[in-house]
Amino acid sequence: MTPAADATLADIGEFGLISALRSRFPQGEHVLLGPGDDAAVVGVPDGRVLVSTDLLVDTRHFRRDWASATDIGHKAAAQNLSDINAMGGRASALTVGLAAPPDLPVSWALELAEGIAAEAAVVGASVVGGDITRAEEIMLAITVLGSCQREPVRRSGASPGDVVAICGRQGWAAAGLAVLTRGFRSPRVLVEALRRPAPPYDAGAEAASLGATAMIDLSDGLLADVGHVAEDSQVWIDIDPASFEVEEPLEAVGSALGADPMSFILTGGDDYALVATFPESARLPQRWRRIGQVHAALPEESARQDEGRREAQTSGRVTVAGSTYDGPAGHEHFR
Amino acid sequence: MTPAADATLADIGEFGLISALRSRFPQGEHVLLGPGDDAAVVGVPDGRVLVSTDLLVDTRHFRRDWASATDIGHKAAAQNLSDINAMGGRASALTVGLAAPPDLPVSWALELAEGIAAEAAVVGASVVGGDITRAEEIMLAITVLGSCQREPVRRSGASPGDVVAICGRQGWAAAGLAVLTRGFRSPRVLVEALRRPAPPYDAGAEAASLGATAMIDLSDGLLADVGHVAEDSQVWIDIDPASFEVEEPLEAVGSALGADPMSFILTGGDDYALVATFPESARLPQRWRRIGQVHAALPEESARQDEGRREAQTSGRVTVAGSTYDGPAGHEHFR
Repeated sequence: MTPAADATLADIGEFGLISALRSRFPQGEHVLLGPGDDAAVVGVPDGRVLVSTDLLVDTRHFRRDWASATDIGHKAAAQNLSDINAMGGRASALTVGLAAPPDLPVSWALELAEGIAAEAAVVGASVVGGDITRAEEIMLAITVLGSCQREPVRRSGASPGDVVAICGRQGWAAAGLAVLTRGFRSPRVLVEALRRPAPPYDAGAEAASLGATAMIDLSDGLLADVGHVAEDSQVWIDIDPASFEVEEPLEAVGSALGADPMSFILTGGDDYALVATFPESARLPQRWRRIGQVHAALPEESARQDEGRREAQTSGRVTVAGSTYDGPAGHEHFR
Repeated sequence: MTPAADATLADIGEFGLISALRSRFPQGEHVLLGPGDDAAVVGVPDGRVLVSTDLLVDTRHFRRDWASATDIGHKAAAQNLSDINAMGGRASALTVGLAAPPDLPVSWALELAEGIAAEAAVVGASVVGGDITRAEEIMLAITVLGSCQREPVRRSGASPGDVVAICGRQGWAAAGLAVLTRGFRSPRVLVEALRRPAPPYDAGAEAASLGATAMIDLSDGLLADVGHVAEDSQVWIDIDPASFEVEEPLEAVGSALGADPMSFILTGGDDYALVATFPESARLPQRWRRIGQVHAALPEESARQDEGRREAQTSGRVTVAGSTYDGPAGHEHFR
């Protein structure tokens, strides 16, 4: 069904929207029963299923004046698919909840759905179900299911002596945000990185096969997220800023805005690169760049600097070139 | 962690809330990895996983002046667990997304969590993950995972000649809503039925083992939901109103409010009873009450009455004692 071009959700109703949405969600081979029943049924050959949920709220997690509905759909799916990637798994299915006001254009909801479906298709996942309801604000609730052939790679397995490596671009979305916030629209490649992240979807399973001891995807910021690994693994991690290549667009925006491009890399979120720890002996493909080292304890000087900062900072166990990083490590809600 | 009695989400922040919540969610034996990593891991012995998602929005799906946070948690979980029940499965895990304004009392969020966890525990399911974010409205997004030992019972398998049977109380929540809407607080048993539904959780797998050909849980209203079975199975279903026992509290509220208690039974939602179709030969335990019959086509007279109503009514393929039911069959969002 294709509703009139200017139709709103109020015009076609819940069941009209569901009917229009269903054709946007092709069902892949993992799907034993797709949308439309009390529950969907997804094949899980490995006897265990990975599951993760994210909420996205209009104006907080996306801005309709900054990104198309299709972009927003791509990104909403990407950040969930990335969570499965970060466990070393492969995503197979998504459910999508959409809360929206009745005056929302149907076309916006359909483009959102097409973006979600297209991003899911990149990894062979299907949208198998969801829910639609009325609310004042637009909110998206996405749950992703996945499977993994090896043991899932957790945040808690890093050991002193391990190396820290990153795969995927990092800092681009934050630079894009800085650009848009100041009213600019270019460099376009950075704005696009914010609108439509490109997580390295095949790198999670690769890291698992390379013996990754811990892994996380960078959603809140490199230091904040590496901080979660350090906390959960009860280790200290030192990041070497000299190990990063500062790509040209980041350099350009840093100059134009008078910002240190390394701040985008160290604290920017929303790129969904992977950071993993590996045994020192691991032979890493080129796309995995070594960026740091796992230690049993911080050097004494950093530990002193760090005192009194631990409570507020998830990155309390992370240093940059041996020193505590000055500035916010990432984003926290409600604060 | 137990925050101060009058703390708000703004006081303790996202990570403070997560930490306080985690202790409210004990992890059952299905859970291979609980909350706190990029994804949770749940054991799925049958090689397939059932999944369903529901959104609940403050003032639309629950009212904080009518129900405690614990009640709201119980009900939010129940309606999701019921979706797995309606497939003949058993729920194993939930994820919970909570969007809320920063001035929400932490105590409300914790009581909500306790209600969800307690309801999940009834069927042996665990809350394995979730997400928390800031929003203007309180919204809950719950996803349930489950497994089933037999083939899932779909909505589409009813055949002419099958009998229709119900298990669980029906109409009580609607009567409770009618009571509260008019400013009363009793009969308490009906108000409680609205606040905290009691789905017949073990009846879904039982129906599957008894050879149920189709099944659905009653969330939107009996006629509306049976209408989904009729549509998906391409059959006509006739409900016999004389087959219901109108329980005393429904009778009492009907008299007091001048309402036909059968309207609660036929169109009331939120009780999460199960309706299933069975071959005529099935021997049903006492708690399954026969309430109707599956036909290939409607009697001619009803079909004529029905003309022109089909589009608006999900219950177009459902009759009551051979006639089209006058009145709304159930609830639809945005309309």
